[in-house]
Amino acid sequence: MTSQFSKKNEAWSARFSEPVSELVKRYTASVFFDKRLALFDIEASLAHADMLCIQGIICEQDFNDIQRGMAQIRREIECGKFEWQLDLEDVHLNIEARLTLLIGNAGKRLHTGRSRNDQVATDIRLWLRSEIDHIGILLNNLQLALLDLATQHSSTVLPGFTHLQVAQPVTFGHHLLAYVEMFSRDAERMIDIRRRVNRLPLGAAALAGTSYPIDRERVARTLGFDEVCSNSLDAVSDRDFAIEFCAAAAIVMTHISRFSEELVLWMSPCIGFIDLADRFCTGSSIMPQKKNPDVPEIARGKTGRVNGHLIALLTLMKSQPLAYNKDNQEDKEPLFDTVDTVVDTLRIFADMVSGISVHVEAMRNAALQGFSTATDLADYLVKKGMPFRDAHEIVAYSVRICSERGIDIADLSLEELQAFSPLIGNDIFSLLTLEGIIESRKHIGGTAPTQVKYAIATAREKLSKKPPY
Amino acid sequence: MTSQFSKKNEAWSARFSEPVSELVKRYTASVFFDKRLALFDIEASLAHADMLCIQGIICEQDFNDIQRGMAQIRREIECGKFEWQLDLEDVHLNIEARLTLLIGNAGKRLHTGRSRNDQVATDIRLWLRSEIDHIGILLNNLQLALLDLATQHSSTVLPGFTHLQVAQPVTFGHHLLAYVEMFSRDAERMIDIRRRVNRLPLGAAALAGTSYPIDRERVARTLGFDEVCSNSLDAVSDRDFAIEFCAAAAIVMTHISRFSEELVLWMSPCIGFIDLADRFCTGSSIMPQKKNPDVPEIARGKTGRVNGHLIALLTLMKSQPLAYNKDNQEDKEPLFDTVDTVVDTLRIFADMVSGISVHVEAMRNAALQGFSTATDLADYLVKKGMPFRDAHEIVAYSVRICSERGIDIADLSLEELQAFSPLIGNDIFSLLTLEGIIESRKHIGGTAPTQVKYAIATAREKLSKKPPY
Amino acid sequence: MTSQFSKKNEAWSARFSEPVSELVKRYTASVFFDKRLALFDIEASLAHADMLCIQGIICEQDFNDIQRGMAQIRREIECGKFEWQLDLEDVHLNIEARLTLLIGNAGKRLHTGRSRNDQVATDIRLWLRSEIDHIGILLNNLQLALLDLATQHSSTVLPGFTHLQVAQPVTFGHHLLAYVEMFSRDAERMIDIRRRVNRLPLGAAALAGTSYPIDRERVARTLGFDEVCSNSLDAVSDRDFAIEFCAAAAIVMTHISRFSEELVLWMSPCIGFIDLADRFCTGSSIMPQKKNPDVPEIARGKTGRVNGHLIALLTLMKSQPLAYNKDNQEDKEPLFDTVDTVVDTLRIFADMVSGISVHVEAMRNAALQGFSTATDLADYLVKKGMPFRDAHEIVAYSVRICSERGIDIADLSLEELQAFSPLIGNDIFSLLTLEGIIESRKHIGGTAPTQVKYAIATAREKLSKKPPY
Amino acid sequence: MTSQFSKKNEAWSARFSEPVSELVKRYTASVFFDKRLALFDIEASLAHADMLCIQGIICEQDFNDIQRGMAQIRREIECGKFEWQLDLEDVHLNIEARLTLLIGNAGKRLHTGRSRNDQVATDIRLWLRSEIDHIGILLNNLQLALLDLATQHSSTVLPGFTHLQVAQPVTFGHHLLAYVEMFSRDAERMIDIRRRVNRLPLGAAALAGTSYPIDRERVARTLGFDEVCSNSLDAVSDRDFAIEFCAAAAIVMTHISRFSEELVLWMSPCIGFIDLADRFCTGSSIMPQKKNPDVPEIARGKTGRVNGHLIALLTLMKSQPLAYNKDNQEDKEPLFDTVDTVVDTLRIFADMVSGISVHVEAMRNAALQGFSTATDLADYLVKKGMPFRDAHEIVAYSVRICSERGIDIADLSLEELQAFSPLIGNDIFSLLTLEGIIESRKHIGGTAPTQVKYAIATAREKLSKKPPY
Repeated sequence: MTSQFSKKNEAWSARFSEPVSELVKRYTASVFFDKRLALFDIEASLAHADMLCIQGIICEQDFNDIQRGMAQIRREIECGKFEWQLDLEDVHLNIEARLTLLIGNAGKRLHTGRSRNDQVATDIRLWLRSEIDHIGILLNNLQLALLDLATQHSSTVLPGFTHLQVAQPVTFGHHLLAYVEMFSRDAERMIDIRRRVNRLPLGAAALAGTSYPIDRERVARTLGFDEVCSNSLDAVSDRDFAIEFCAAAAIVMTHISRFSEELVLWMSPCIGFIDLADRFCTGSSIMPQKKNPDVPEIARGKTGRVNGHLIALLTLMKSQPLAYNKDNQEDKEPLFDTVDTVVDTLRIFADMVSGISVHVEAMRNAALQGFSTATDLADYLVKKGMPFRDAHEIVAYSVRICSERGIDIADLSLEELQAFSPLIGNDIFSLLTLEGIIESRKHIGGTAPTQVKYAIATAREKLSKKPPY
Repeated sequence: MTSQFSKKNEAWSARFSEPVSELVKRYTASVFFDKRLALFDIEASLAHADMLCIQGIICEQDFNDIQRGMAQIRREIECGKFEWQLDLEDVHLNIEARLTLLIGNAGKRLHTGRSRNDQVATDIRLWLRSEIDHIGILLNNLQLALLDLATQHSSTVLPGFTHLQVAQPVTFGHHLLAYVEMFSRDAERMIDIRRRVNRLPLGAAALAGTSYPIDRERVARTLGFDEVCSNSLDAVSDRDFAIEFCAAAAIVMTHISRFSEELVLWMSPCIGFIDLADRFCTGSSIMPQKKNPDVPEIARGKTGRVNGHLIALLTLMKSQPLAYNKDNQEDKEPLFDTVDTVVDTLRIFADMVSGISVHVEAMRNAALQGFSTATDLADYLVKKGMPFRDAHEIVAYSVRICSERGIDIADLSLEELQAFSPLIGNDIFSLLTLEGIIESRKHIGGTAPTQVKYAIATAREKLSKKPPY
Repeated sequence: MTSQFSKKNEAWSARFSEPVSELVKRYTASVFFDKRLALFDIEASLAHADMLCIQGIICEQDFNDIQRGMAQIRREIECGKFEWQLDLEDVHLNIEARLTLLIGNAGKRLHTGRSRNDQVATDIRLWLRSEIDHIGILLNNLQLALLDLATQHSSTVLPGFTHLQVAQPVTFGHHLLAYVEMFSRDAERMIDIRRRVNRLPLGAAALAGTSYPIDRERVARTLGFDEVCSNSLDAVSDRDFAIEFCAAAAIVMTHISRFSEELVLWMSPCIGFIDLADRFCTGSSIMPQKKNPDVPEIARGKTGRVNGHLIALLTLMKSQPLAYNKDNQEDKEPLFDTVDTVVDTLRIFADMVSGISVHVEAMRNAALQGFSTATDLADYLVKKGMPFRDAHEIVAYSVRICSERGIDIADLSLEELQAFSPLIGNDIFSLLTLEGIIESRKHIGGTAPTQVKYAIATAREKLSKKPPY
Repeated sequence: MTSQFSKKNEAWSARFSEPVSELVKRYTASVFFDKRLALFDIEASLAHADMLCIQGIICEQDFNDIQRGMAQIRREIECGKFEWQLDLEDVHLNIEARLTLLIGNAGKRLHTGRSRNDQVATDIRLWLRSEIDHIGILLNNLQLALLDLATQHSSTVLPGFTHLQVAQPVTFGHHLLAYVEMFSRDAERMIDIRRRVNRLPLGAAALAGTSYPIDRERVARTLGFDEVCSNSLDAVSDRDFAIEFCAAAAIVMTHISRFSEELVLWMSPCIGFIDLADRFCTGSSIMPQKKNPDVPEIARGKTGRVNGHLIALLTLMKSQPLAYNKDNQEDKEPLFDTVDTVVDTLRIFADMVSGISVHVEAMRNAALQGFSTATDLADYLVKKGMPFRDAHEIVAYSVRICSERGIDIADLSLEELQAFSPLIGNDIFSLLTLEGIIESRKHIGGTAPTQVKYAIATAREKLSKKPPY
């Protein structure tokens, strides 16, 4: 008798009267992308075999054989010698067929009490858990790079914009800390999602559990899962964790897109606030002068990719009846590419941030334009007793007059200022400097250099703690 | 001088030479949808005014006037007498203008040290926090309704499907518990998101903080926020919480779509497992016999709506530079409609579940078809010593033979069975009953009635605990 | 006997034992949004009645009564007196109930040979057809406004950007024509979609057609449809046209988002290329100096809304079995809001474009920075015989040297230039002016003022032709 | 001097002080996916070189060398010997570098008067045009397969469903024709999109056109383009065609998802209308009896993938300022995968349809359940003079009574029927047969076998015509 595994479709061949066509094989096979789960598949199989042995479902010799066979398969995979076969459809059948070839009947006993439905759900959770931990580290590294740059620029003044109009002066350190907040929330989300990823589906078998006396909690402990999935039908069909992860990844990439947009703007010669290191830029095949901020631009574009994968998964799961349907195989590629995109992007951004050169003078000059001191003039009048809304009106009027004359408020003499309101005194000139304005915003979350330094220290402290896993 | 608030665009009129056109007003105004934030806007304004008073930024008389004026405005809103004006653009200016009309200069002082940018961010977080708590309760109610039905059907057998093919028998209670798991995870996610919603942006002012000596932590305590947002630029531009909420809502609706799909299938005369109470169905204007499961169908359709809103928000935030841009006003309608859709759907589903009639015999009859016992026959052979893969082959072959003869495995005599394998003995007939199969899956998460009862009890226990907020 | 229409659910009440609950009514009713189809519903009903009469299915008196009743209902709707009732669920039953109240049995005969399934599909196609025609006109108006501005600025030079880096000089007229191309393609797409909208579903009845001897082609002619839908099952379940329209609308809004991004950039004081008329801008409640480009910002945000509606419809239709399912009712709100968003946006943009003030000097100054002449220097060397790639290298090197010295290529003397290549002669100085560079790109689609004028004339010619419907 | 192409970043190296990092190279390179454009890149380069030669921009010897070099490169690519280098970033630089190595200076002259911006836009349009033509053929093949099956089943009766409730009897041929309509509209859309794809961007150079005396219309003719893109800025930045194509592809896949849903339902043992050939199904690794409809399930899942790619492209283009930005490189992978998904799916479906076995008796039996004749009973009463709404009420009532008694209307005696209405006569029994009902729907688009045959003939006629390209 030839091995029933020489062809994948022989895994169920006795019920079928014709083999799967070649096109169908390619269309339905997953081995070309799910082989990246291989080491997790082996890890989960070993934990399963250990439990089968302890529970007396397989004998100790079988378990030893399985361990030995799997050790060899792992080596073959790690050194690239393992031959993946399309005919064996997926990572699971490829490994099991090889195992059976290596160790005989014990290999055929490994699948006792489980199904590919709970097996793949287990593999992907093991894999995603490790990727989430990796992403957590990368998010921290990016925050650290931003904190280093913010530390250098806790007093560097640039215009804060709203609506891309000059609003009020802020420090560049303060501006960078806004992104630290964003990536810090991203890291929080990863921790939350990890809790729901870290539950064991194995033991659900195809959908209903198994009649073998399995010990799911032992398997969970061996594999480091926090809990076992409480319902077998849910265990094999649940892909919430993948959707949840992609949604969090889409928010990561949305933050990256916002930061990228600013990097591209700041590096445009019209603004000229920063320069990116040459190694993150490329030139043009036709325009010899060009130095283009390729990395932030591509990263910005990749936001679309991750938003798309999120929609792919939501569409995939919409209206699927219980329990497992083959549709679910389509969960992997979007999830894999989402992880790859986020991992590569975070790595490159941490590196790129440390290569930013800041043009301090250009930032300062821009802050002196656009009436960035107007709010503080209004606040000055309020502190002298005028209701805020009236002060707002008076300053708005003075801005309009200055604008028509092509000058800034700072260019007005005391007499001219007093024509707008007699409440204005000589003390106005020391208060309406960029430094004066910045310094005055000294509450929690404000842009005063002392607050920026405080916020940096707090963020560093938070990052130095290990996450709760 | 006429009130500067008789027209909204006079809030900044002194700087402008022409009024906003009517079409532009309609295009840019938000009052028609953001007025639903009104009571939260008042609550936040009162907390702000209290702090301004304690900090000596406004006097006690002003604070008393503001409290009095706001109390009246609240009454006017609650009894539908408040006149919302398009010319006043949004909920904030409408309320502030009315306040100033009622109490004069103190009304104009309320806006000291804040901006609409941090004000709207605060309002929407207060509102969303209360909606999340509401949704948490509704998710629990739906789980309770499912648990009640599961309790009645902890031993009712129906075929478990994979690929809509009969797979193995399960109990209906077990099947329903899969949805309890899903909605339980949804509730977990709501708790996670609430933590990130429950942070105070107020104090960020337009983007940079304010020069007034404000006490943000006092305002946070008054409003029940866990923390203050640590960076002013981030505070006014962050909409992560809205995206995160919509992503979680999309998962809720995905679960609803799956359950709806099953309800529609089960109620089709071809399957006939259940009936929905008439009050959740409608008929046809042309076909007199029709009783259509409208509620699950519309709910299934509404999944699209929520997926769409999620994409709307992700698209909205993509590539926005810091800090606030007017684009952000577009966050509200998708978020409002998402909340309404989830709230209505969860309410109606809890009610509908309790009105499901189960056709126990139809379920049982379906479980007797489709070779649902085949896996257990294979397992039987394994327990007699055959490797699983070989047992699988033999049973597959027997199914093919039975299928060609138009009979089920259960219809075979012992002699016929033994032709497939001599390992089969007389004990096979008691093991291969539906009840025998169900009972044998008695590990955690399995479909045995004892496990189903245990899972119901565990779920009830979990639901009886207050969430950690 | 009371009218069977006093309550909507009595339209099928005899089969039901309990009425629909109030919450279910609200959840499943569509009258609050589908009433905007009312006049199209009447138009379609009259065409149907006309056919029923001609075919002898109803008598002439009935048809006359229906016409009279419908005329009154139309008046009631137009003057806002029609009372829409939630209990009557949708626009169709509301109108039919009113008709029956007004004219008795003839009203009950109107629904002969049709169903709400084909009726609503007909109404929505009639409505969408008229909106598409409207959008076609608005797209043309926006193109005309752009062409007017382009005509004024066919020779105004600004830097063309790639990667937001200065690339080569272009004319502002040329830049605006890029948007004319985009909106012109949008108009083409509307025409294509209209062909597939303009097919008559009526006659499909619930799903299978009807046993009455109807004449669908007569109804099609009366209503101006190009064809009848060829398959009844498809006719009632097809929503392709709605998806297709939303996809085209998403592209319109994507173009709007790109143009908005540029308007916001150009109006930022860091760039300062244009000013928008005050009536398209608003100020800040806290910063008196602000003039914010609200309209392009909100429009940019609304892109998300339309992308979201597209996903809503695709999700809605995913995996729906034939024929009609109640899910389909969820097609309307996304479609309605998409139309409203596109219509309002296009109207306001045509108006806004004509209110753009261009800062010609600022544009020119920006074009003199950033080595925008480098490509032409390379081309100069090529024309003197150097291979392009070598010329590119030499100019890149010269840019790097100039950049380090803080000067532009134009600042170099002939001797300095010849140090890079002896091929450079005195003629270089006349060629490397902005005007020289612009003029030299005189092929089709190039930025030379003559080409811009030619392109404007061609576009005007194209717009003057009526679309092929 | 070493070749300037030994490293990609040396294409602009003279302006840069440090090389691109390895991680950045991987992150920004496109050669691993855009190499599939290689033969189109060569085709476009040859057309460009031909024009350069005719216009006297390069000499005839150069053109001959380029032709010779390109012929060799084409051979190297076709036999898999071409060495793609990451260092050369993309398909264009890889080919150009190889060309220069093969033929020297003439290779460096090829890039005269063009840029990678217009080059890649040209390549991708050539590629997509050929894929659209391929998809057109595949859509036709699928329609033909459906027509063949419909021809066999023009009189086979099954229940038509609405809301998955039995509605009215239809023929299976008629049901299949609904999908012919859908795929026919898909083919129409492909033709519409092809018109907008088939325009030549080449000549736009980087963004502004070129100072060389190029002849764009000659290039367009050589490459079979209908038109040249009229604006250079638009030409390099336009990706409408990709979005449009993905939207049309999403509709194709939505149709596929609907058909798949029905195939899965029909193959479920609870319904049992059809069987799919074994070669489109797979079994289970644990349940020996399973035969799962994998192909329709995976296809249904792939709908998500294409919806996701559509969103990826829309997100990508949102808010991009003119002209070219590096974000655009992210257009390729979604587009490539969309094409591959649609192509594979359509191929496999055409094959699968021809392998469907129909269980005619099961269909007929299902049509006899669920009161599928009720509408015709109501119509019968109308033809006897009763207003439709009254007839609807009476039949609804009779259904309710039958339902309570567990019988169908067809089981009632004449006396029992007359108890509902004295208008019912003996002729009712011949009219209320499945065949009678089917036959009576004989208008265009109706389900009568004659109409089904007519519709099949019409569809075949339409398919036999070549599309207008």
